[in-house]
Amino acid sequence: MTGTDRTQIEPPQDHGPVVILVGAQMGENIGAAARAMMNCGITRMRLVAPRDGWPNPAAEAMSSGALELMPPVEVFATTAEALADINHVYATTARPRDMVKHVLTARGAAEDMHTRIKSGEKTAILFGAERSGLANDDVALAQSIITIPLNPGFSSLNLGQAVLLVCHEFMSAGDATPPKQLPTGDSAPATHDALVNLYERLEDALDDAGFFRSPEMKPSIVRNLRNMLGRAEMTEQEVRTFHGMISVLAGRRTGHD
Amino acid sequence: MTGTDRTQIEPPQDHGPVVILVGAQMGENIGAAARAMMNCGITRMRLVAPRDGWPNPAAEAMSSGALELMPPVEVFATTAEALADINHVYATTARPRDMVKHVLTARGAAEDMHTRIKSGEKTAILFGAERSGLANDDVALAQSIITIPLNPGFSSLNLGQAVLLVCHEFMSAGDATPPKQLPTGDSAPATHDALVNLYERLEDALDDAGFFRSPEMKPSIVRNLRNMLGRAEMTEQEVRTFHGMISVLAGRRTGHD
Repeated sequence: MTGTDRTQIEPPQDHGPVVILVGAQMGENIGAAARAMMNCGITRMRLVAPRDGWPNPAAEAMSSGALELMPPVEVFATTAEALADINHVYATTARPRDMVKHVLTARGAAEDMHTRIKSGEKTAILFGAERSGLANDDVALAQSIITIPLNPGFSSLNLGQAVLLVCHEFMSAGDATPPKQLPTGDSAPATHDALVNLYERLEDALDDAGFFRSPEMKPSIVRNLRNMLGRAEMTEQEVRTFHGMISVLAGRRTGHD
Repeated sequence: MTGTDRTQIEPPQDHGPVVILVGAQMGENIGAAARAMMNCGITRMRLVAPRDGWPNPAAEAMSSGALELMPPVEVFATTAEALADINHVYATTARPRDMVKHVLTARGAAEDMHTRIKSGEKTAILFGAERSGLANDDVALAQSIITIPLNPGFSSLNLGQAVLLVCHEFMSAGDATPPKQLPTGDSAPATHDALVNLYERLEDALDDAGFFRSPEMKPSIVRNLRNMLGRAEMTEQEVRTFHGMISVLAGRRTGHD
């Protein structure tokens, strides 16, 4: 999962949400958040009253280059100022707040963001400070709350991880990668004809070698073999390799008998 | 998103995948991985040839208590030994491998794991070392590959983040939290009757105050007001508050006219 291909991305055409960190304390966490955003193709970060000011060398070191690739981080004195141009605001909170406000999972929020962004709205996600989270007055500025369902006995996420999960849900909601695929490289998946040809070749070789000791059992054994080999979803190349194995094994056996 | 409720969890009844870190170098990353696992209710960790041996104080510090809550981490010399009792193995890789093997997204893999676990299979997820990832021989031991779709220009995840994303998909796939809900606390959602009563009260007060200057426009203005207020999905308590606002505003206006 680690990798080193950190090539320069194209000038960001980012229509994702703006990520706003309110009162972040550790530069390292701001950097980790920037890295997580960039992993998910989200590039616009705003800071409200960061404890150690801005720019912050610790943030730059921890961002693994993400901060250099993003548009400049914008810094604001208050949450309301950071939200001035935003149409729909999501506040992330770990604990229930005594507020009547829609509560979304990160996945539900991601779908909501895509819908709003498609219809021209500008969205933002608020993340609170490391220990205390968002103040209730900040949550009250938001239209929706995002709460990530986690192990209730161990739900403490650090800031960078929280940003990663929320941003990753946004990226996944817009991702068309099929959940399962079988890349076959230069070789094509084998045709049914080639498979049956292989099965028959194998069954003949097994027959010659005396594998089917009880003739009445042969049909069910053959079915089981075909089921097993069918599940392997062989490529044309693998069918050729299998033919080669049969030749060698059957040949060697003959040679030594 | 940060939080402090790190209470003791129940003795783990964890039927999730086993997480296997192969050749992990930094104790900090092992600890971050343990924390991420525990966030997602996954508690069984195995290590293959960890560079700095085991136990590792840096891992314990970084796990925020997760390692103490998990069953003891098991350490093996080889990947094959760590996989001995496993039925289905998923290998995480950042880059395509020249292997004909099913490639799943983390989400696709999560659903596959739940299906297999329900039918009694024991599953495991392999994560490689920080820089190099998994060796091809380790990937060849797996039945499936997990690749997380990320920003192709910035796809480098650290080990703890990779474990978090894969484990979180497993947790989400088994999670029944509705993607959107509106908690109304002690107050119930207002009935339609109460809403119409409020609308009429407001419209009467506006009428008395001369708000509807053009009588022919009144019906469409009223519809617009009702649409706007309807979207607020008020609770019974909020309807009462709104009545109070109308009383005060209408009363004050009368008092000053």
